[in-house]
Amino acid sequence: MADGDDVFTPGSDPAAAPSDGGARAGRRARGGGGAARRAERTARRVVTAPRISRGIPDFDVLNAEAIEIIEANAETVLEEIGVGFIDNPAALARWREAGADVSGERVRIPRGLARKLCATAPATFDQIARNPERTVKIGGRDLVLAPVYGPPFVRDSDGGRRYATIEDFRNFVKLTYSSKWLQHSGGTVCEPTDVAVNKRHLDMLLAHMTLSDKPFMGSVTEPSRARDSVAMCELLFAQDGGLGDRTAMTSLININSPLNFDATMMGALEVYAAANQACIVSPFIVGGAMAPVSVAGTLTQVLAEVLAGIAYAQLVRPGSPQIFGAFVTSIDMNSGAPTFGTPEASMILWGAGQLARRLGVPFRSGGGLCGSKLPDAQAAYETANTLNAALLGGVNFMLHAAGWLEGGLVSSYEKFVMDDDQLGALHQVAKGIDLSEEAQAMDAIREVGPGGHYLGCQHTQRNFKTAFWRSDLLDYKPYETWSEEGARDTARLAEARVKKLLGEYEAPALDEGVRESLEDYVARRKASEPDSFT
Amino acid sequence: MADGDDVFTPGSDPAAAPSDGGARAGRRARGGGGAARRAERTARRVVTAPRISRGIPDFDVLNAEAIEIIEANAETVLEEIGVGFIDNPAALARWREAGADVSGERVRIPRGLARKLCATAPATFDQIARNPERTVKIGGRDLVLAPVYGPPFVRDSDGGRRYATIEDFRNFVKLTYSSKWLQHSGGTVCEPTDVAVNKRHLDMLLAHMTLSDKPFMGSVTEPSRARDSVAMCELLFAQDGGLGDRTAMTSLININSPLNFDATMMGALEVYAAANQACIVSPFIVGGAMAPVSVAGTLTQVLAEVLAGIAYAQLVRPGSPQIFGAFVTSIDMNSGAPTFGTPEASMILWGAGQLARRLGVPFRSGGGLCGSKLPDAQAAYETANTLNAALLGGVNFMLHAAGWLEGGLVSSYEKFVMDDDQLGALHQVAKGIDLSEEAQAMDAIREVGPGGHYLGCQHTQRNFKTAFWRSDLLDYKPYETWSEEGARDTARLAEARVKKLLGEYEAPALDEGVRESLEDYVARRKASEPDSFT
Repeated sequence: MADGDDVFTPGSDPAAAPSDGGARAGRRARGGGGAARRAERTARRVVTAPRISRGIPDFDVLNAEAIEIIEANAETVLEEIGVGFIDNPAALARWREAGADVSGERVRIPRGLARKLCATAPATFDQIARNPERTVKIGGRDLVLAPVYGPPFVRDSDGGRRYATIEDFRNFVKLTYSSKWLQHSGGTVCEPTDVAVNKRHLDMLLAHMTLSDKPFMGSVTEPSRARDSVAMCELLFAQDGGLGDRTAMTSLININSPLNFDATMMGALEVYAAANQACIVSPFIVGGAMAPVSVAGTLTQVLAEVLAGIAYAQLVRPGSPQIFGAFVTSIDMNSGAPTFGTPEASMILWGAGQLARRLGVPFRSGGGLCGSKLPDAQAAYETANTLNAALLGGVNFMLHAAGWLEGGLVSSYEKFVMDDDQLGALHQVAKGIDLSEEAQAMDAIREVGPGGHYLGCQHTQRNFKTAFWRSDLLDYKPYETWSEEGARDTARLAEARVKKLLGEYEAPALDEGVRESLEDYVARRKASEPDSFT
Repeated sequence: MADGDDVFTPGSDPAAAPSDGGARAGRRARGGGGAARRAERTARRVVTAPRISRGIPDFDVLNAEAIEIIEANAETVLEEIGVGFIDNPAALARWREAGADVSGERVRIPRGLARKLCATAPATFDQIARNPERTVKIGGRDLVLAPVYGPPFVRDSDGGRRYATIEDFRNFVKLTYSSKWLQHSGGTVCEPTDVAVNKRHLDMLLAHMTLSDKPFMGSVTEPSRARDSVAMCELLFAQDGGLGDRTAMTSLININSPLNFDATMMGALEVYAAANQACIVSPFIVGGAMAPVSVAGTLTQVLAEVLAGIAYAQLVRPGSPQIFGAFVTSIDMNSGAPTFGTPEASMILWGAGQLARRLGVPFRSGGGLCGSKLPDAQAAYETANTLNAALLGGVNFMLHAAGWLEGGLVSSYEKFVMDDDQLGALHQVAKGIDLSEEAQAMDAIREVGPGGHYLGCQHTQRNFKTAFWRSDLLDYKPYETWSEEGARDTARLAEARVKKLLGEYEAPALDEGVRESLEDYVARRKASEPDSFT
């Protein structure tokens, strides 16, 4: 088959038609100048990442007896051992009021109470984006993909491994915006270590709001920063009547496993829940260190922690959207290093997904997790193991879906585009099997018959463009061509793609008034306190 | 946790205790000399690959309606289009006798007849090994792993890509024998291109029989070579009363898709079925070329082909063991290259597994399939996608589980040990979730409580050695250590492991009389005809 334009690319999927979000934003724009109009025209080139609504079943690894054991054990943990709410008298008061047994900072929750409180959390919710085409539904059969979160380092082929800067942060926001597969801009795509700790959240939010029009995450490192996040969202949606009760952020609230809820994270959760912004209530567990060295024991603790966390959010505001999080990996008992893409991590993910579905809330887990220092085969094995487990495990919100390297210490430019390409495959699996008459292809089997071939048959001509997923990155060339072109490995192919995508990036249109109000907010808040780097 | 001997390794699993197979072989030995006794002692060092009996459910992607459509369509294909049995009058006569409509070389099979004939094929069977500890069960909940099959090239870090030789063949047999995870020695681990085409099967069989004591595959490239395979097995098991009705080989019978059964492959199948040796009846499909460019259409054709093939084997010998094969991949419609680890391949694998289970025969699919030219990230993504799909898809016999590279053109030394390491993870997932009281770990959760850590608790001390899978290859070291040691990627780590394993290899004990009879057979057969290289 000859090369040419007329070949299948995932972007030719009708479900992935070019976004008209730029035009819509333009219609709302006040006095947009030449730059805005140019942005409006060029923004059409960015494809809206298609929604994933799974057409495949979930992989349920736990049988009824296993579920019963784990759910009963989790209630026992809450009732007999309890959880700690640290430095947070208001939380203790809320729990006492709700009927828990509070002793010191220990909250013991009677059997069934936490689950009952969780019942007001919605099964699904919309997280709005400033481009309405990019609003996502979280929960149910949907899967929303977001990039890596949290690394202090970046790695690229030119510069190696180095501390991340705000320039790197903006680059990862741009790469995410360019992605055909990531529906979500994420949060701390890397830590901009060149900006003061107490101010970097402002620059990060501004980047997500201006360089992308996809939904994003809020700051959680201080309650005041959560308030800044909400305030900036009010400005971003000001021309649309403000936030109101709409959810515009999904933020990551890690539990201090085992069984402790610290004041910083709970303070951020309280701000977000009160504003009806979504939180991912997420045990952060390296199994064997923060949870028992067994799958069943870890699942028990995960469930107990999430029950307590989501129940608490419902005490703050009943009906506020919450996600059942599970960031769980195993440990190398030799070196003490966390390990990723391991059998135990997959089983915990599958089990946690079932527990989340039984609780009736959206589920967060998975991602392109790996421990490797390089975007090499280890990184890819571990990442693919995690991505596959998460897809089949019914994950609704997948953080770290692209760019994660070295156990989350590094955001890798090359691995970002490598993972992103695999996410295209994941989209395709999620669709499930088409059983239309056309897909049954009986006419083709009749036409070709024994000993023929299908390359030229009518059914193939009608369907080849969309039938098979095709990588935008990997090498499918003949050996000789590949050799002549330098025998490049995947990392080198990725290096070229990173440069291409960043070179082609153009920002989505944004109303100038909105932009000015955001920049003004950031400037005022930055001026209001001295820099702190701790 | 300090380094040391007292750390978890998968080999410390009691199920993976050192084999006493060498000693058993020794007890049967007649006049074994010093070499045999030395082999007997040293053979103890090789761990028997543990049996995999899945404790996890299968991933059933097809719902009842989908199964009904595909099964009905497959019957329509057999009845209305039919299959070709080429250059094989005896086969046509058998089909006519069985009630099929035979016209020229086309065999049209009335609805339900093929499925009815398949009913005599066993749901499970044992494939015996000369070391009885290594006999495998094929079918049911079991999964048997075998190495790459068929490549004319090999690749290693020293020599790059080059034509395979008999020395390479022996090396891959040795590596497979050394594997803790591969229970099966496979067949054409690479094509020994330096041996005449009409004689290489003899050297290959001799290598499997003498350098390993795991079960293996027979030759299929000519009916006479299948007869050599059976004859050599009779010699191998001579001291055990000969083969009798026992199955000692599982051989790969590719269907000439679409819908044709050629005389060479059917000739081999006829030899094996008559001798009660197992065949994998396997459509070999690059979707879009040898089958319709759709998942549902491909599944229909796969089922029709396997129904006809296994039914035919039952006409040759009712009750002979047969495996439902499905080697199906997609095509890059741009370059025409086959692609691996793709969404469509996973869906076809899952669907075919369901169809095989409904037919009541063992299922073969999967492996470490990839299209990459190098053991890089592309290879690992694609391989992991395939391995994960195969594990959950209920595969019973997994060929190509280690060492496959470049679309099956290359057996890669480095990728062999990389894949093999991942197979350890696959073993662990297959075990499923332990729900014993010890695994529930409630004592640990009580002991540690909120805010503590589990590294030192009693439960961790009791379980850490076996709780988590640990790679024998991948890098878990601190960044600084890894940097100081040369910042090696996975391929370089694998290079060192290949050399270590080949350096440590020692052959399992073999009775000298048996060895001499095999070598004599090979010499006589080689002398009986001139070399042919076509």
